[in-house]
Amino acid sequence: MLDATLSRIDNEMEQNLNRLFDFLKIKSISTDPEFKSDCVDAANWLVKDLESFGAKVEKYETGGHPIVLGHLGSESGLHILFYGHYDVQPVDPLELWDRDPFDPVLEKLPSGHVIRARGASDDKGQLMTFVEACRAWISQNGKLPFKVTFFFEGEEESGSPSLVPFMKKYKKEISSDIVLICDTWLFESRVPSIVTTLRGILKEEIIISGPDKDLHSGMYGGISTNPARVLTDVLSALHNHEGIVTIPGFYDEVSELPKNIKDQWEGLNFNHNQFLHDVGLSNPAGEKGRAPLEMIWSRPTCEINGLKSGYINEGFKTVLPSQASAKISFRLVGTQDPLKIRKSFREMVENHVPIDCKVTFSEHEASKASQMDTSSPGFEKAREAISEEWGTEAAFVGCGGSIPIAGHFQKITGVDPILIGFAKDDDQIHSPNEKYDLESFHRGIRSWVRVINSFSELQNV
Amino acid sequence: MLDATLSRIDNEMEQNLNRLFDFLKIKSISTDPEFKSDCVDAANWLVKDLESFGAKVEKYETGGHPIVLGHLGSESGLHILFYGHYDVQPVDPLELWDRDPFDPVLEKLPSGHVIRARGASDDKGQLMTFVEACRAWISQNGKLPFKVTFFFEGEEESGSPSLVPFMKKYKKEISSDIVLICDTWLFESRVPSIVTTLRGILKEEIIISGPDKDLHSGMYGGISTNPARVLTDVLSALHNHEGIVTIPGFYDEVSELPKNIKDQWEGLNFNHNQFLHDVGLSNPAGEKGRAPLEMIWSRPTCEINGLKSGYINEGFKTVLPSQASAKISFRLVGTQDPLKIRKSFREMVENHVPIDCKVTFSEHEASKASQMDTSSPGFEKAREAISEEWGTEAAFVGCGGSIPIAGHFQKITGVDPILIGFAKDDDQIHSPNEKYDLESFHRGIRSWVRVINSFSELQNV
Repeated sequence: MLDATLSRIDNEMEQNLNRLFDFLKIKSISTDPEFKSDCVDAANWLVKDLESFGAKVEKYETGGHPIVLGHLGSESGLHILFYGHYDVQPVDPLELWDRDPFDPVLEKLPSGHVIRARGASDDKGQLMTFVEACRAWISQNGKLPFKVTFFFEGEEESGSPSLVPFMKKYKKEISSDIVLICDTWLFESRVPSIVTTLRGILKEEIIISGPDKDLHSGMYGGISTNPARVLTDVLSALHNHEGIVTIPGFYDEVSELPKNIKDQWEGLNFNHNQFLHDVGLSNPAGEKGRAPLEMIWSRPTCEINGLKSGYINEGFKTVLPSQASAKISFRLVGTQDPLKIRKSFREMVENHVPIDCKVTFSEHEASKASQMDTSSPGFEKAREAISEEWGTEAAFVGCGGSIPIAGHFQKITGVDPILIGFAKDDDQIHSPNEKYDLESFHRGIRSWVRVINSFSELQNV
Repeated sequence: MLDATLSRIDNEMEQNLNRLFDFLKIKSISTDPEFKSDCVDAANWLVKDLESFGAKVEKYETGGHPIVLGHLGSESGLHILFYGHYDVQPVDPLELWDRDPFDPVLEKLPSGHVIRARGASDDKGQLMTFVEACRAWISQNGKLPFKVTFFFEGEEESGSPSLVPFMKKYKKEISSDIVLICDTWLFESRVPSIVTTLRGILKEEIIISGPDKDLHSGMYGGISTNPARVLTDVLSALHNHEGIVTIPGFYDEVSELPKNIKDQWEGLNFNHNQFLHDVGLSNPAGEKGRAPLEMIWSRPTCEINGLKSGYINEGFKTVLPSQASAKISFRLVGTQDPLKIRKSFREMVENHVPIDCKVTFSEHEASKASQMDTSSPGFEKAREAISEEWGTEAAFVGCGGSIPIAGHFQKITGVDPILIGFAKDDDQIHSPNEKYDLESFHRGIRSWVRVINSFSELQNV
């Protein structure tokens, strides 16, 4: 049963790829209103695809982009839910792409074949690994061994504003025994992994305004307040010289890493030199005295994601800008409360802003960090299954990114999700020239078939 | 002779305005290559207009935009040169304009009529005051009482790269007894003025680069260097908490204001509250302990004119940007050497940039401050003439802006130019909705007729 299904996958990779390419052609950039109808197209594409192998699917309208929910299998017994997102990151700067981000192609590199397109890795390719595994299982065996619910959203890259209200309203439909999420990485691009800690996130946008128009820096320079100078002062004050965030109370809810986790992470022999080298860097630049894996998995951060003020085009314009703005995000750990940190951050900014400047804040996403209980049903079975596929012992790892959906499941349906993904460090998600290795896609599908097979023994959890 | 010419001007204001409007319609933005042919159009328009009242005109090609030189009157005796520029500032942000910046209109405001268009005040309207004065004089009196050379360039708003090589090459053509420049203001929009000190300028652009692509702030945040943070640290370090520039040696060539000038400036009773109020501010934000007029006329500054990094569009993108850039300009005074300050600034930036970041510099304009000798020929005559026109004693004042052409004349032809202009503080030059008061244009033309009349007594200088 298992071997035949795995063989079927190997034989049908061309069809699997064709379906993924169709999906990748849809420009489902959720953060930019210009692409609203493309997001609807992507949701419709998923509805049709899930129905093609027998799922009962419903598309739910939200205040933003639609949510797709599909059910397969019997109503009683074990119930597995799989989550993924069909939306993708913006593509700018477009000029740094070697080709159209929405014209997917299979490229042959010295290291093997890669699927090149925006969303190939994050998250359309990963989402489709599970869809293809279910399709192959049904084709080979007639039906799945338990109930499966597919849960696909289209706002993951823009803060998921519709998600929590939806999950609360449709709590019954999305309650399950096990939750699977495919939006993470192989450790060091080779070790299959289950992410058991995730950093939270807080996103803030500030605009500092001074004079009521851009001014001539000759007429007004020296007497008038310059919002760009105020902004750089404020932002510079957010860290001290040791890389420590200076916002009052920022580290109050941050604990030191427990020894057993520290030991386990040390056992992974993380090659941080290679990790940094791959992006043109050489030196861990975070808090002094912290191990590299700690810096990215279990320490909070404060980063500038965008800066804008004054004249930014070619040439020069000696304006004193009337405004200066920044996008800033925080990665959170432990039990840090994003709303408490937002308040403290804003107070600190307000205190820096002088007479004649005012600051306005816009809020974006805010979510706490998550920690999974690996003794929950499915974790060990899943770990064994993916170890088998990749021929190497799978690891429980941390993740520096924020996948707020994990915490939402913990809070709303009371399940600690199992986060398994097949992306590689060099996939360039959120950057130009995103790709997904053909190996990730192929072995990803095979991995889920093994997980389905091993979960079939779990009928009474 | 004088009264008849002044009357002629009053009677021909409609024709004068029509000519100016034609000139204002030309989009001669010199800093943006997209408008290169518009700059040529503006030069051609001037050639044709000067020829229409008998000038011998030549248009000189340069590496950038053309220079127009026109001569009128006899070869012997007194020789007056008039300088202006036909190029204008960029118009962005375009959405803040109430109308098309290149569709000039006469608007009636409670305070009187204004000419609304980009370049109306800086410098097309001001340039045309002298042209119209000459035209009226010739129409009324047959010929000018001395030789006049018109010298118009098209790169003033983009650092005048072609100007000095041209002036050196055509030194003979541009050598004169007196130089007049019309690119300045009425003091507090009411007192006719001759600017006798000008700040110099140094423009620098820096790009700080870190990772070789934009990174995901979850995967890389905390371990990777962030160029936007490095940039804000560097820029924030350029001033201390007292508003003093911290670049080593910055104040070495800056002297305290001599007592007689200080007294004269105090006598002007500058209303800095009104000056700031007009642009939405209330508090002098410069160096602690300096008088407001000192801050803008005789103290050096360092200002941020542009900032750009990461994701700056609508929505949010949690990138760690690979680059961060800034445009910075310095206003210089006394004998500050722009090249020495450039070197010191760059060393300071280099010293702040950590491992894994590199900085690249681009140079733009650099020119020293200028001080005019008011005992040179023409200063007193001009001051009397404009006092007469405006009915109030004209003042010798400072100017915070940088009009490098003044220093070029001092160095190349050995003449201290007489800077007279009729712009008002609220003209919004370099900002959206630029305007020039009809009064400035009308009385400006009349002022020059009075200056021409008074210079006719100066045949032997």
